[in-house]
Amino acid sequence: MHNQTFMRTYSPRQEALARKAAQQRDNQSFENLASSDLLTQYRIKSEPYYRMVADEIELYEAAYSVRMPIMLKGPTGCGKTRFVEYMAWKLNKPLITVACNEDMTASDLIGRYLLDASGTRWQDGPLAVAARYGAICYLDEVVEARQDTIVAIHTLTDARRMLPLEKKGEVIEAHPDFQLVISYNPGYQSLMKDLKQSTKQRFGALDFDYPEHDIEAEIVAHESGINLDIAKKLVHIAERARNLKGHGLDEGLSTRMLIYAGSLIYKGVQPLAACRVALVRPITDDPDMRDALDSAVTTYF
Amino acid sequence: MHNQTFMRTYSPRQEALARKAAQQRDNQSFENLASSDLLTQYRIKSEPYYRMVADEIELYEAAYSVRMPIMLKGPTGCGKTRFVEYMAWKLNKPLITVACNEDMTASDLIGRYLLDASGTRWQDGPLAVAARYGAICYLDEVVEARQDTIVAIHTLTDARRMLPLEKKGEVIEAHPDFQLVISYNPGYQSLMKDLKQSTKQRFGALDFDYPEHDIEAEIVAHESGINLDIAKKLVHIAERARNLKGHGLDEGLSTRMLIYAGSLIYKGVQPLAACRVALVRPITDDPDMRDALDSAVTTYF
Amino acid sequence: MHNQTFMRTYSPRQEALARKAAQQRDNQSFENLASSDLLTQYRIKSEPYYRMVADEIELYEAAYSVRMPIMLKGPTGCGKTRFVEYMAWKLNKPLITVACNEDMTASDLIGRYLLDASGTRWQDGPLAVAARYGAICYLDEVVEARQDTIVAIHTLTDARRMLPLEKKGEVIEAHPDFQLVISYNPGYQSLMKDLKQSTKQRFGALDFDYPEHDIEAEIVAHESGINLDIAKKLVHIAERARNLKGHGLDEGLSTRMLIYAGSLIYKGVQPLAACRVALVRPITDDPDMRDALDSAVTTYF
Amino acid sequence: MHNQTFMRTYSPRQEALARKAAQQRDNQSFENLASSDLLTQYRIKSEPYYRMVADEIELYEAAYSVRMPIMLKGPTGCGKTRFVEYMAWKLNKPLITVACNEDMTASDLIGRYLLDASGTRWQDGPLAVAARYGAICYLDEVVEARQDTIVAIHTLTDARRMLPLEKKGEVIEAHPDFQLVISYNPGYQSLMKDLKQSTKQRFGALDFDYPEHDIEAEIVAHESGINLDIAKKLVHIAERARNLKGHGLDEGLSTRMLIYAGSLIYKGVQPLAACRVALVRPITDDPDMRDALDSAVTTYF
Amino acid sequence: MHNQTFMRTYSPRQEALARKAAQQRDNQSFENLASSDLLTQYRIKSEPYYRMVADEIELYEAAYSVRMPIMLKGPTGCGKTRFVEYMAWKLNKPLITVACNEDMTASDLIGRYLLDASGTRWQDGPLAVAARYGAICYLDEVVEARQDTIVAIHTLTDARRMLPLEKKGEVIEAHPDFQLVISYNPGYQSLMKDLKQSTKQRFGALDFDYPEHDIEAEIVAHESGINLDIAKKLVHIAERARNLKGHGLDEGLSTRMLIYAGSLIYKGVQPLAACRVALVRPITDDPDMRDALDSAVTTYF
Amino acid sequence: MHNQTFMRTYSPRQEALARKAAQQRDNQSFENLASSDLLTQYRIKSEPYYRMVADEIELYEAAYSVRMPIMLKGPTGCGKTRFVEYMAWKLNKPLITVACNEDMTASDLIGRYLLDASGTRWQDGPLAVAARYGAICYLDEVVEARQDTIVAIHTLTDARRMLPLEKKGEVIEAHPDFQLVISYNPGYQSLMKDLKQSTKQRFGALDFDYPEHDIEAEIVAHESGINLDIAKKLVHIAERARNLKGHGLDEGLSTRMLIYAGSLIYKGVQPLAACRVALVRPITDDPDMRDALDSAVTTYF
Repeated sequence: MHNQTFMRTYSPRQEALARKAAQQRDNQSFENLASSDLLTQYRIKSEPYYRMVADEIELYEAAYSVRMPIMLKGPTGCGKTRFVEYMAWKLNKPLITVACNEDMTASDLIGRYLLDASGTRWQDGPLAVAARYGAICYLDEVVEARQDTIVAIHTLTDARRMLPLEKKGEVIEAHPDFQLVISYNPGYQSLMKDLKQSTKQRFGALDFDYPEHDIEAEIVAHESGINLDIAKKLVHIAERARNLKGHGLDEGLSTRMLIYAGSLIYKGVQPLAACRVALVRPITDDPDMRDALDSAVTTYF
Repeated sequence: MHNQTFMRTYSPRQEALARKAAQQRDNQSFENLASSDLLTQYRIKSEPYYRMVADEIELYEAAYSVRMPIMLKGPTGCGKTRFVEYMAWKLNKPLITVACNEDMTASDLIGRYLLDASGTRWQDGPLAVAARYGAICYLDEVVEARQDTIVAIHTLTDARRMLPLEKKGEVIEAHPDFQLVISYNPGYQSLMKDLKQSTKQRFGALDFDYPEHDIEAEIVAHESGINLDIAKKLVHIAERARNLKGHGLDEGLSTRMLIYAGSLIYKGVQPLAACRVALVRPITDDPDMRDALDSAVTTYF
Repeated sequence: MHNQTFMRTYSPRQEALARKAAQQRDNQSFENLASSDLLTQYRIKSEPYYRMVADEIELYEAAYSVRMPIMLKGPTGCGKTRFVEYMAWKLNKPLITVACNEDMTASDLIGRYLLDASGTRWQDGPLAVAARYGAICYLDEVVEARQDTIVAIHTLTDARRMLPLEKKGEVIEAHPDFQLVISYNPGYQSLMKDLKQSTKQRFGALDFDYPEHDIEAEIVAHESGINLDIAKKLVHIAERARNLKGHGLDEGLSTRMLIYAGSLIYKGVQPLAACRVALVRPITDDPDMRDALDSAVTTYF
Repeated sequence: MHNQTFMRTYSPRQEALARKAAQQRDNQSFENLASSDLLTQYRIKSEPYYRMVADEIELYEAAYSVRMPIMLKGPTGCGKTRFVEYMAWKLNKPLITVACNEDMTASDLIGRYLLDASGTRWQDGPLAVAARYGAICYLDEVVEARQDTIVAIHTLTDARRMLPLEKKGEVIEAHPDFQLVISYNPGYQSLMKDLKQSTKQRFGALDFDYPEHDIEAEIVAHESGINLDIAKKLVHIAERARNLKGHGLDEGLSTRMLIYAGSLIYKGVQPLAACRVALVRPITDDPDMRDALDSAVTTYF
Repeated sequence: MHNQTFMRTYSPRQEALARKAAQQRDNQSFENLASSDLLTQYRIKSEPYYRMVADEIELYEAAYSVRMPIMLKGPTGCGKTRFVEYMAWKLNKPLITVACNEDMTASDLIGRYLLDASGTRWQDGPLAVAARYGAICYLDEVVEARQDTIVAIHTLTDARRMLPLEKKGEVIEAHPDFQLVISYNPGYQSLMKDLKQSTKQRFGALDFDYPEHDIEAEIVAHESGINLDIAKKLVHIAERARNLKGHGLDEGLSTRMLIYAGSLIYKGVQPLAACRVALVRPITDDPDMRDALDSAVTTYF
Repeated sequence: MHNQTFMRTYSPRQEALARKAAQQRDNQSFENLASSDLLTQYRIKSEPYYRMVADEIELYEAAYSVRMPIMLKGPTGCGKTRFVEYMAWKLNKPLITVACNEDMTASDLIGRYLLDASGTRWQDGPLAVAARYGAICYLDEVVEARQDTIVAIHTLTDARRMLPLEKKGEVIEAHPDFQLVISYNPGYQSLMKDLKQSTKQRFGALDFDYPEHDIEAEIVAHESGINLDIAKKLVHIAERARNLKGHGLDEGLSTRMLIYAGSLIYKGVQPLAACRVALVRPITDDPDMRDALDSAVTTYF
C-alpha cells in the first residue's frame, strides 16, 4: 500500500512534512531573507513563564510534529494564550495571534488589495503570512468570528494544507512549519455561536482549566511578586467564587484576576481593597453576590 | 428530429461538446499560451490516494462526458474533496476549489474591477477563470453561500453554459472542458439554509458516506502510517461513536479524525491520549458523551 | 378624440412605436455602428430548439408588437428560458439575460460609474444597454431580487418607457425595439417574497407547465439523443414523481432532469444508475421518498 | 400685522414667491444658460392625454401657486403619474421623477461626490437639481423609501424651502418654481411602512381612484385604439374584478391593464386570449380566482 | 471655594465663557476672515415671524448665556423650528440645522476625508463647523438618529465642550458662541427609539404645544394672508381634530396645516375644498375619521 | 522562582514596567520629538476640580503603578469622566477619550489606511496612538460598542500589552506609560448589551455613585457659582427624585443636572423656572412624574 508513486504527495503526513522542510531549508536563502524581517516581530524573545499542569506540552509537540491543527478549550484567564506562547518559544516558531471578532471578514485573515502610488498592491493577511512563511497562527476566541468566515481556514486544516487567495488568483501551499491553533471557551457556546462540526473535526483538542490549588498559588506568587502565603489565600477566595458559578456568577474568578489582586497587594494596597477592586467589583453588580464574595475575602484577610 | 440546422447549436450535448473541444484544440495555440500559467497552479500534480467505494468513478466519468453539473452529498470528512481531486487528476483537468461562505458575493465568484496604475482592470473570479479556460470548478460547502448568490451559477448549469459578466458587459461561453461540481452535507440542511429546487434540479447527485469497515481501515492505515490492526481498532471506535449520532452527538467521527488519531499514534503518542486529543475532545463538551466515548476507546486500547 | 396633436406622443402605443422604429431606421447609421459590437454577443446565432405547446408564440408576438412587458410563469426547468431565447431568435432581436438575486442592486441593473485612468466613466448596466440600443431584457427569477429594486423597472413598463439614470443625470428613452420580460415560479411565492401588485399589473402573463406526455418525450429524445421509447419511459417516471409534489416532494421532476438522465443513458450508463444520479438523488434526501422514486424507476427499466 | 419689515421674508408665502420669481426672471440670463440643457430633458414635450375626473386640476393649480407640497393618493395604475405629467406640461415646468425604493439613500436624492480626473466633483441628485433650477420633483411610491431618508425632504416642505447639502457644506434655497409631489398607495400602508405624521402634515393631499365607467372606457379606447364598445366591455370586466378586492384579490384590475388588453385586441388577438394574458394571469395564481375572472370575461366576449 | 487656580479652567461656566469670548474677540481678525464666508449662509437674514407664547424666549436666553444645551419638546408643526430660527436671529448667531435620520452616521455630523486632486482632504461636518466657528447647531428630530450615533455629541454637552475628530487626530475645543439644540416629539417615543437618560440629562428642556386659540389664529392669519375670522374658523376645526387624537387619529392637526389651508383660501380656493386638500386628506385614510373631520369643516364653512 | 532569565520579560509586572520606562527615558529624545506635538493636545492643561469621595484616588494610583486596566462603574453624570481627567492631570499623562458607539469599528480604534497624494498612508487610531506614545486611553460608555469590537482591546489588557495592527502587519508593544480605562453604567446592562466575562476579568473596577449630601452641594456650588444654601436645596430635590428611580423614573437626577439648574439660577432665572427647565422637563414626559417632581421643587423654593 505504501506505493512509491503515492509517496510523493500522499505518503504519511509526517514524512512528507519532514521531506518538505528539508527541501525548504536548502533553498530558503533568498525567500527567508525577504520574510525574515516580517516574522522577527512575531518571535517570542525569551522563555515565557509557563507551569506545566499535565501532559499538554508533550501532546502539543506530537500534534505539531504532524502539523495537526489544535483547539485549546477552557475558561477565560486560565492560561491558554500563555501556553501557546510557551509552545511557540519552545518549538522556536514565530507566533501570529489574531483576536477574532464578529466583524472580522475573510479578507482580514487572508489579505486584500491596498491602493498604492502605483495602483493596487496585495497585502497578505495574518493567516496568509503565517501560511506562506511558516508561523504558528493562533486564532483567539475563534467562536466570536462568523461561522462562515471560519470556513476560510478549511483548506489549511485538511490534507491539502493550502490557502487559495481567490482575489489574487494565487494558491499558497502552506510552509511546512505552519500550524493553526484556535482557542475557545465552551461556556460561551450557544445555539447562535458554536463551531460547526465540519470545523471541529479538523482539530485535535486540548482541555484547559484553572490549575489545582498549589500550582495556581505558585503561578500567582511568581507573576505578582507576592509571597506564597498570600497567594494561597487568594486561591482560596477564587475557589469559593468558582463554586458560585452557575449560582449567580456567570464565570468563576480567573487566575489572571488573582495575579491582578496580588500585584496591587505587592504595591502596598490593603488586601481588602485590592480584592474589592481586582476580584469582586469587576465580576458582578449584584449586591448579594458582592456580599457573598466580600465575606469570602474577609475570611482570609 | 435530428435536423441538421439545429445540430449546429442544439444537437445532443455530448456531440456538440466533442465538436467544440476539437475546434478548440485547433486554435488553442495562442489562447492557451496566455492561460497556461494561470491554470498550472490548479493542476493536481500527482495521483491523489483515493479508494474507490462503488461505481462513483464510472458515473462521474459519464457525467463529465456530457458535462453534467455534479453535486457530491455526504457528511463532513468522508472523502468528497479527495474524490473530486482524484477525478480532476484522472481526467487531467485543472481543479479550482472555492470554499463557500455566507459573505461570499457574486463578485467573489465572477470577478470584479481592480484599481490599477492606469485605472480599473477587470479580474476574473474563480468561476470565470474556470469557465473561460476550461477547469473543473468545485464549490465546497455550497449551502453556506447565500441562496441567491448561487443563482449566479444557473446560466452555467443549463444548456446555455454561459456566464454573463454583467459589470464588464461580456458574456463568457463556457470552455468545452468546463464542469461545475458542488458539495454539501445534507445533515446541515435547515429551513434557513437549503438549496432551492431550481438549483438542485440543475445537478446530478452522487451520495457519499463513511466507507465500510475494511476499506476505511485500509485508508486510515495508508494515510497515517500505522498498521492495519491499529487502524481497525480506530474504525471500531468510530463505528460506536457513529451510533451515537442523534443521541447526543451532532455528527459521527469522520475518517479524517481517525487519520489524525493514527498520525499521533504513529508519532509515539499513547493510543489513549491520541484518541482523547483527536477523537473525543474535539467532538463534544458534554461530560456524559465524553465518558461514553472514552470507554469505547478503552475497550479497544 | 384621436386629436392629431396628441398623436405625436400619446397616440395608440403600436402606431407610435411603428413610427418611432421607422425614424430610428433612418438615422441609425451612426448610433448602430457604435452599438453593433455591443449587441452582437447578445444575438441568438441559430434557431434554438423549441417545441410549441399551445398559442404561446402567437400571443408573445402580439405582445411584442405593442411592446407589452411579459411575465413568464411556471415551475423550474419547464422551458421558460428556452422559450424567450426562441422568441428573440424568431423576432431577430438581441436578448440580454439577467439572473436576479437578492444582492442585486439597482446599480447592477442600471449602471454605475467606474474609475478610469482619466477619472470616472459611466457604464450602462444590462437594463440600460437593452433600453438604449433595443434588446429584449430578460430578468430571470425576478422574485429573487429585492421587491424595491424591482421598482427601478417601473418607468420602463408603463407609457413612459423611459429609464432615468439618476446618478448620471440622464434619462434614456427606450429604443422602440426594447421589451422587458421577467420569469417567476409561483411555487416560490411567499409572504416575504412576492411581486407587488403595482409590479404585476405592468406585465402581461403567459403560463408555462411541463409539456404533455408525447411532446415532453419528443423534447427529451431530441435534446439527449436517446430514442423515443426510452424518452417515454423517463416521462412516465417524471409523471409519477410529479404526483408526489406536495406529498413529500417540494417540486416535481423537470424536463431538464429527464434530459440529463437521457444524456447519461445515451453515453452508455445503465438506466437505473442514470436515473439514480440524475433524477432521484438530486431531488430528495428523504429515505422514504427515495424508495418511492427508485421503485418508480424500476417499474420502467 | 402685515408689518413691512416682516414682509421681506415672512410675508404670506404667495407674495414672497411671486416677488422672488420676478427677481429671478431679471437675473436669470446667466444661470439659466447653464441649467437649460440639464432641464430640457425633463420637460414634457407635448400635451399628455389626461381626462379630468373632478376638480383635481384646479386644486393642483392653487396648490402650485402657493408651492404647497402635494401628495397623490390612490391605487396602482389609476393615473397618478399621468396626472402629474399633465400638470407639469400645463404649468410648463420641468418634471423630475424619482422611483423610490428601500435602497435609496439620502445621497441618491441629494447628491454625492464623484471621483474625477482632478479629484472629487460634486453631483447634485435629482432633488437638488429640482430645488436648484426650479423643477417639479415627483417622488413615486414614496412609502417604499426608508421613513428616515424621507426626513431629508422636510426642510424643503416647510416655510424654509431650503435643502442643506451637508456633505458639500452648501445650503440650496429652493428656486421659486420648485414644488415637491409624492405619490403613495394607501392600500400598501402597513405598520412597517407608512409615512410619519410629521411627513404627512407637510403635504396637501389629492385622492385618486379608478375613473367612473364612461370616463374609463373613453380612456381605454383612446389609449389602446379599440372602439368604445369593446372598451366598455373591458371596463365591465374590471368592475367585476374590483368587487373581488379583499375577497381573494389583493388589488383590483387597473385602468392600465385594460389598456394593455385593448392593445392586444387592437393588434388582432382574440378578446378571450387578450384578457387571459393581460388581465387574469398577471393578477392571480389562485385557480378559483382565475375561474371567477375567466367567467367574467366570457360574460362579455 | 473660588480658588483662583481652579478659575483658569474650572471656574463657573459663565465666567469662563465670557472670558473666552473676550479673548476670541481680540484675536479673531484672522480666523473669522477664513470662516466668515462659510458661516454667512447660516445666518438668518431678517427677523423671522415668531409669536411668543410664554417665557420661552427669556429662558432660552438664560440657557444660552451659560451655553446649556437645549432640548425642544413638542408635537410636529407647532413652531419648534421657527422658534430656534427666531432665537438665532435675536442672539445674532449663525444657525446650522441638521435633519436627523436613521442612516446618519457619526461622520455625517463630524466630518470625513474627501478625495482631492492632491490626495485626501478633511471636511468638517455640520457639528464640527458649528463647534469650530461658533454657531448654534440644531439637530432636528434627533430621536430619528441612531441612539449610539448620538453619543458623539456627549463631549460637547458637558463641561469639556470639546469634539474629538478621531479620524483626523484633532480635538476641537468648542468656540465660546457654540450651543447645541435638539428637538424631539415625545409622541414618537417608543421602546425602540428614545433618547438614553445619559443623553437627556445633558440638556435643559423647553416644552412646546399648539398655541392657544387667539394666538394660533393670529399666526395663521399672518402667515397665510387670510383675515382673522377665517383663521379662527380654521383653528376651531383644528381644535376639534385634536380632540380625536388617540381616538382614531395618531396626531392632531398642526398649525402648519392650518396655514396651508389658509393659503389655498387666500388664493381663491373654496374653503371646503381647501380644508379637504390641506387638512383632512393628508391626515387619515380611514372613511369614518374623514367623515368626522369633513363634518367639522362644514360646521364652520 | 524569581529566575533571572524569566525576569527579562515575565518578572513581576511593576518591576518590568519600571525598567522599561527607564530605558524609554534614555532613548526617547528622537521619538518623543515626533510624538510630542501629537500628544500635547491630549494633556490636561490645569488641575480639574475634583472632590475626593473615598479612597478612589489612592486605589487608582496603585492600579496605574502596575498598569492594571481600570473600569469605572456608575450612573450617568456622577463624575466618572471628571475623575479620569483629574487622575490624568495628577499623574501628568496625556488622556485620549473615545466616546464609544455601536457603529464604531475596530478600525476606528486601531487605525486605517488613508489615501494620500502618494498612495495610502497609515493613520493610527486613538487606541494605537495611546499605546504607541504612552497615554491613558479612556473608552467612555464602552458597553455601547459592539461586544466583539471590544475584543480588539484584549491583547492590550493582559500580560502581552501589545496591539497587533493586522492591516499594517505591525505589532505595537505598548509604551510603559500606557493604561486603558473604560466606563460603564451598570443600569444599562441588558441581555443584549453587556460586557463579556472575558472582558470584565481583564479590568480592576472602581464604583462611583452620586456623592453624599454635603459633598454634592459643595460641588454644585463650586461649579455653578451659586451659594451653598441654594446648592443644598437642589441636592435635596435630587435626593427626592432619586428615590423615584425604578418607581416611574428610569434614572435619578445627576449632579450634572443640578449644576445646570444652579447655573441658570446664578444667571438670574427664577429657581422654579430653572428647575423646570434643567431638572424636571428633561427627565420625564409623564404628567404624574412631572407633578411629583414639580412639587418636590416647590417644597424647597
